[in-house]
Amino acid sequence: MKVVEVLHMNGGNGDVSYANNSLVQRKVILMTKPITEEAISDLYCSLLPETLCIADLGCSSGANTFLVVSELVKVVEKERKKHKLQSPEFYFRFNDLPGNDFNVIFQSLGEFEQDLRNQTGEELGPCFFSGVPGSFYTRLFPSKSLHFVHSSYSLMWLSQVPDLIEKNKGNIYMSSTSPPSVIKAYYKQYGKDFTNFLKYRSEELMKGGKMVLTFLGRENEDPSSKECCYIWELLSMALNELVVEGLIEEEKLDAFNIPQYTPSPAEVKYIVEKENSFTINRLEATRVHWNASNDHINGGYNVSRCMRAVAEPLLVSQFGPKLMDLVFQKYEEIVSYCMAKEKPEFINVTVSLTKN
Amino acid sequence: MKVVEVLHMNGGNGDVSYANNSLVQRKVILMTKPITEEAISDLYCSLLPETLCIADLGCSSGANTFLVVSELVKVVEKERKKHKLQSPEFYFRFNDLPGNDFNVIFQSLGEFEQDLRNQTGEELGPCFFSGVPGSFYTRLFPSKSLHFVHSSYSLMWLSQVPDLIEKNKGNIYMSSTSPPSVIKAYYKQYGKDFTNFLKYRSEELMKGGKMVLTFLGRENEDPSSKECCYIWELLSMALNELVVEGLIEEEKLDAFNIPQYTPSPAEVKYIVEKENSFTINRLEATRVHWNASNDHINGGYNVSRCMRAVAEPLLVSQFGPKLMDLVFQKYEEIVSYCMAKEKPEFINVTVSLTKN
Repeated sequence: MKVVEVLHMNGGNGDVSYANNSLVQRKVILMTKPITEEAISDLYCSLLPETLCIADLGCSSGANTFLVVSELVKVVEKERKKHKLQSPEFYFRFNDLPGNDFNVIFQSLGEFEQDLRNQTGEELGPCFFSGVPGSFYTRLFPSKSLHFVHSSYSLMWLSQVPDLIEKNKGNIYMSSTSPPSVIKAYYKQYGKDFTNFLKYRSEELMKGGKMVLTFLGRENEDPSSKECCYIWELLSMALNELVVEGLIEEEKLDAFNIPQYTPSPAEVKYIVEKENSFTINRLEATRVHWNASNDHINGGYNVSRCMRAVAEPLLVSQFGPKLMDLVFQKYEEIVSYCMAKEKPEFINVTVSLTKN
Repeated sequence: MKVVEVLHMNGGNGDVSYANNSLVQRKVILMTKPITEEAISDLYCSLLPETLCIADLGCSSGANTFLVVSELVKVVEKERKKHKLQSPEFYFRFNDLPGNDFNVIFQSLGEFEQDLRNQTGEELGPCFFSGVPGSFYTRLFPSKSLHFVHSSYSLMWLSQVPDLIEKNKGNIYMSSTSPPSVIKAYYKQYGKDFTNFLKYRSEELMKGGKMVLTFLGRENEDPSSKECCYIWELLSMALNELVVEGLIEEEKLDAFNIPQYTPSPAEVKYIVEKENSFTINRLEATRVHWNASNDHINGGYNVSRCMRAVAEPLLVSQFGPKLMDLVFQKYEEIVSYCMAKEKPEFINVTVSLTKN
């Protein structure tokens, strides 16, 4: 099983983290709303489909899953009213890895749809929902079956840890002390994964179909720059302390790497153009503070809890479950200390694409 | 919430019953295989779709869910090889009520698909799977988005307990002692539900699309005849014993009725023709012994366990959970006694339809 599957299957969207994780994601969905709105509105007005087929890739299972759906429905309803058209059928496909809790989504759909109808009015067309399990680095949908693809906070995850020819000593991610071959291997894996993603989606989207993808990224062209690596560097500090204390073997830490890549807009542009199925409409970087709740007292706690939900399954598969409380206690202290000194931010990259 | 939802959501397909329930269903799927094969083969050869869209309604979550898929794939593969065509894309949609365990299906899909590819060979086209939660007495899929609909052992469940104007005293289902108004109310509810089912499916199927539906039914034109009511009559005997023992209030039992209807082929024919969206290709009744495993020693135990999984959620919502062990202990005794005297059978009705 690929590491990213372990990650998702073991609670990347778990209960522990949900409230926090959700808060950053929610903020990002709202920040990128103008781009999403423009894309779905252009799409609807140019194709005027009777059934509008929309996929959310990496949907997770919670309030954000539905937030995207209601935003999209509201935009389309506004446009179709403006053009005095009948409301189309909406067909939403929720995708995530097979370990995602689809039961939770399915059991909330009835109430969600009722709320949505209360907000939009009686004229809203029929809404259909389905769950589609699988990695978005494979084909997920029949050919030419989608109009619109949305993905938020998922595409920075690689399909696997890159194959490294040198040890990434003392680090768990790219860092300024990583050998150049490590940085190169990470970029190579990202290039391969994102190219596959574009290729598969181009087969699934109809001509003129659109995608709006948001993921963790960076502004700096150096993939080991602080803006994207700092959050992992602090976790590696916590793990290194446990090595010093003799609780973790050094070799085990050296062999552990996070399967993530946070690309720059230029890298995204390069890969999209090379792959050649899509035209870029917009490509933007935005910033969101690590502590999206602006809760200054509990900032370190919030970030640590959020990262624990994401990282714990990966750490457990390498180091076992026993040390986790200790790791994240140390991590929280380190994060709190840094957040008191500075105001670290995540960089989000959003790209809006049209299928050629 | 409608009673049938309580039923499905609380374990109509629960672990307790699975092995047994599965055995009867599996036998029925295999018995009706020639009809299913004929329908999918005719459909494929007449429409030759690039993507073959198939829905299984009331899919449950277990081995039978996948049994249907592999049967259908194998027939299409045989046909397309005969005609020297490329394998199509297969798009399977698994439907059941929102309380069904879709997570279990999704987590088994990877292994199932691998097994299927091992059996059919490398040329098999891409297979896509999705889960669609909801009652099949509502619209579930976009307009004209299906080629083939399959449903096994689900359509005898009504969307709700019929509205009765008279008490069905001492009974929990139609019986020879039920007032005529009860029988009439049951048939009315069935007519309404099955008509809606046909109407919604006709909107979802493409022209020329087909359905193969198998459900519990009867051969006798009397809806209170023993062949379909006996299994419930024995359960009502067990419950009446508890009334006599003062453990269940008589009024509670009088107010409890099972939301099921087992139609005759003639009733099915009448409703299909009246609704007028479909042409009947085949309409058959088959028989299967109550004890599909032919395990004569444990026959009563097997049937009782199987029925417990189906009926317990309904009984619990009326009588509470405490008496269930006692109810089904009595039921097992009664069933064992009857099975020793006679060889009771279920009647299954299978109808194969083409959309006009």
